[in-house]
Amino acid sequence: MPMLRMPPPHGGRLVDRVVKNKNRAEKIAAGCPRFELKATLDPKGVPIRHVYREIMSICYGFFSPLEGSMVRDELERVLKERRLLSEWIFPFPILFDVSEDDYKALGVKEGDRLLLTLKGQPFATLDIEEIYRIDPKDVAVRTFGTPEKNPEVVRQPFDDKHPGYLIYRCHQPVIFAGKYTIINEPKFKEPYDRFWFPPAKCRDVIKNVKKWRTVIAHQTRNVPHVGHEMLMKCAAFTGDIEPCSGILVNAIIGAKRRGDYPDEAILEGHEAVNKYGYIKPERHIVTMTLWDMRYGNPIESLLHGIIRQNLGCTHHMFGRDHAAVGEYYDMYATQILWSKGIPSFGFDAPPHEVDYGLKILPQNMGEFWYCPKCGEIAYSETCGHSKERQKFSGSFIRGLVSEGIYPPNVIFRPEVYKVIVKWWKVYGYPFVNNKYLKLKAQELEVDVPKLELPKG
Amino acid sequence: MPMLRMPPPHGGRLVDRVVKNKNRAEKIAAGCPRFELKATLDPKGVPIRHVYREIMSICYGFFSPLEGSMVRDELERVLKERRLLSEWIFPFPILFDVSEDDYKALGVKEGDRLLLTLKGQPFATLDIEEIYRIDPKDVAVRTFGTPEKNPEVVRQPFDDKHPGYLIYRCHQPVIFAGKYTIINEPKFKEPYDRFWFPPAKCRDVIKNVKKWRTVIAHQTRNVPHVGHEMLMKCAAFTGDIEPCSGILVNAIIGAKRRGDYPDEAILEGHEAVNKYGYIKPERHIVTMTLWDMRYGNPIESLLHGIIRQNLGCTHHMFGRDHAAVGEYYDMYATQILWSKGIPSFGFDAPPHEVDYGLKILPQNMGEFWYCPKCGEIAYSETCGHSKERQKFSGSFIRGLVSEGIYPPNVIFRPEVYKVIVKWWKVYGYPFVNNKYLKLKAQELEVDVPKLELPKG
Repeated sequence: MPMLRMPPPHGGRLVDRVVKNKNRAEKIAAGCPRFELKATLDPKGVPIRHVYREIMSICYGFFSPLEGSMVRDELERVLKERRLLSEWIFPFPILFDVSEDDYKALGVKEGDRLLLTLKGQPFATLDIEEIYRIDPKDVAVRTFGTPEKNPEVVRQPFDDKHPGYLIYRCHQPVIFAGKYTIINEPKFKEPYDRFWFPPAKCRDVIKNVKKWRTVIAHQTRNVPHVGHEMLMKCAAFTGDIEPCSGILVNAIIGAKRRGDYPDEAILEGHEAVNKYGYIKPERHIVTMTLWDMRYGNPIESLLHGIIRQNLGCTHHMFGRDHAAVGEYYDMYATQILWSKGIPSFGFDAPPHEVDYGLKILPQNMGEFWYCPKCGEIAYSETCGHSKERQKFSGSFIRGLVSEGIYPPNVIFRPEVYKVIVKWWKVYGYPFVNNKYLKLKAQELEVDVPKLELPKG
Repeated sequence: MPMLRMPPPHGGRLVDRVVKNKNRAEKIAAGCPRFELKATLDPKGVPIRHVYREIMSICYGFFSPLEGSMVRDELERVLKERRLLSEWIFPFPILFDVSEDDYKALGVKEGDRLLLTLKGQPFATLDIEEIYRIDPKDVAVRTFGTPEKNPEVVRQPFDDKHPGYLIYRCHQPVIFAGKYTIINEPKFKEPYDRFWFPPAKCRDVIKNVKKWRTVIAHQTRNVPHVGHEMLMKCAAFTGDIEPCSGILVNAIIGAKRRGDYPDEAILEGHEAVNKYGYIKPERHIVTMTLWDMRYGNPIESLLHGIIRQNLGCTHHMFGRDHAAVGEYYDMYATQILWSKGIPSFGFDAPPHEVDYGLKILPQNMGEFWYCPKCGEIAYSETCGHSKERQKFSGSFIRGLVSEGIYPPNVIFRPEVYKVIVKWWKVYGYPFVNNKYLKLKAQELEVDVPKLELPKG
């Protein structure tokens, strides 16, 4: 068994569809019909997704080998087998959707190039390869599965209370399929800018700055409490002949569920873990991916695997209820996928053991709780004091926080908790609410530089 | 990468040279010249080794595929390349040594069978294949290496202060080479009896009682302080797709260095870790191997790998200064061996990557210390509070213990410390001293049932 090395990108090479040369960008986009990107809204008008994030993740290579919005055959293949037409595994429909009205007003046809603007500025182009219609509800149902068709892991029918289901259900019905190209790079605002490590840069940092041979990825949409920190530290003891050299935190940044923490607090909270030495920065890095989380548990874990393999990680930790909300999926669904596969989703074997599969290796983890007998954060498969255990309850912790009670050190590192308070002061509330979602959909994580395009 | 399974025994099959049928035993041993086994003594007359332990470890399969005392060619091969004549890796000379006087008195020759008695009772036979002489000092030097010949890892010439060197240096000069056969099974005394899991039984317990798929071995010659417990718990997070199912503690039982803990305290101290739930018994087992520890760091780690692979483990944790005493070897010597090999000892690659090598996988670990900032036992590669750290100092802890000071819970679990006190009361001293070594060489861990052999 030879020692592990950084795996190749998913699909063999990193997608790079960002044009940095201004002349070339002008030539690509000049004279194209323009379309201002807008947020996907839920039935009450609350923004729940912004396609610009998918365009960023595709063009910078996070979603390699995906290069754009899926054609109909590819959408079908993804829904049936979770594979692209090129055979490579990909879990979610990725679609550029417009309303019937917008479609009419644009008057574009297959073969046209569309200029996508963001905050009024040229941002990217879409080369329209195919125009077709979807039934958003059908796509939503098939994306996440049903108890009948996916009895291994789906426990309840999905509905509008599930934020990922709602995102697909609220897609517009007209799909423009084709490749995206960013022609005017957005500039990240503070604090996002220092966490932006697109795959090519991230791989370079791992190899040449951090000099890590093995790296385990930690998925997050949370400000880390001490249980999360222990999960990171303990999962990182896996490796090959020694524990993983590094821990890469990759935060999912985008519209999130009410009750989640604001993105800024998530990023700076994880940063505080290394800044204050709980995991030394020589072994820890905080990065982000733009994506409006679909909370798809096993399905989402595939996307997480792809993203983190593209970022250069050798391992990915998966806890119970990975990227889950509610009880739609079995709490072990992701671990079932990564230990034996889920045939009804197209996986007769785990995703790292099939052809055109992933190279990143899973580390399936149990739970952590505080054990007063051990006097430490204990691991479910190790600690025998089941009567004494005190579980980390997300809602209990959120309760403490929202009451303004300073949580004990055994729950939050004080420096991490200060980050929550900092952003609470900025937004007037410690968690994501509709107001935050609306502000975020307007402001985004980026500004887009002015770019005058010559008339075509 | 398929999921790991229990590796085969080293050499392909478990050695089993224990005759349980009394009639067969009688036939084997009847009429043979008898020789009462005795301890190897150091120049001051202190017992430092008892060959009965080697006979037990060989015949019950701990040292598979080794079947007896080595012939001269095999001894040479082991000293040069750390391989048996059958090609399989084996690190230490294993020899049945007698004095010139005993040799003369016995009057045996090659081809004879010798009956070995223990505590006056028939115990085992040795089929003498070859009789030759060694220069014990030469064997001692070549067993452990020299700074000149093994510059990768040997830092100081070995001398009589090194207990393993001293064992070989005090071997008698006449070697009877040949296979051992136990013809009268010794009975373990309390508390040893409940920790006796010879390889065949241990493999059965792992598979059918514990139902573990992956198992990590922990080498010990210590009563576990909390740092050792953390090493076990944290190293066990390695595995393949999830942390190892089980942790197998394997204590080396035999003559040990003054200042080490008594064997009974070591075994019961580790047992207390699972008995009181610090690592639940579903995930933890305490076992033992009879062997007068040679403290051979990288050389010893090979024997540990062989023993624990034979016991059915998939992984072995190796800390810094593994099985080391003094500063003869580089503190990383074992980890160097298991990460890149040590050419001067015959390893151009790690022992699990060479032909006829081991199948057990290494988990090379850093250090643990108490960090008051983290408020926990922290790992050297994780914790960034290098100013605040408080190292577990063996001599500091021994100082506390010998002063009768009850150590804080952050050093010893109270239930583990009580085990030290229990055996302290029995022996009048908490650590191994000359008195304990003499008593142990007389009493041993076993009694030998009476067996009348028919005259041949």
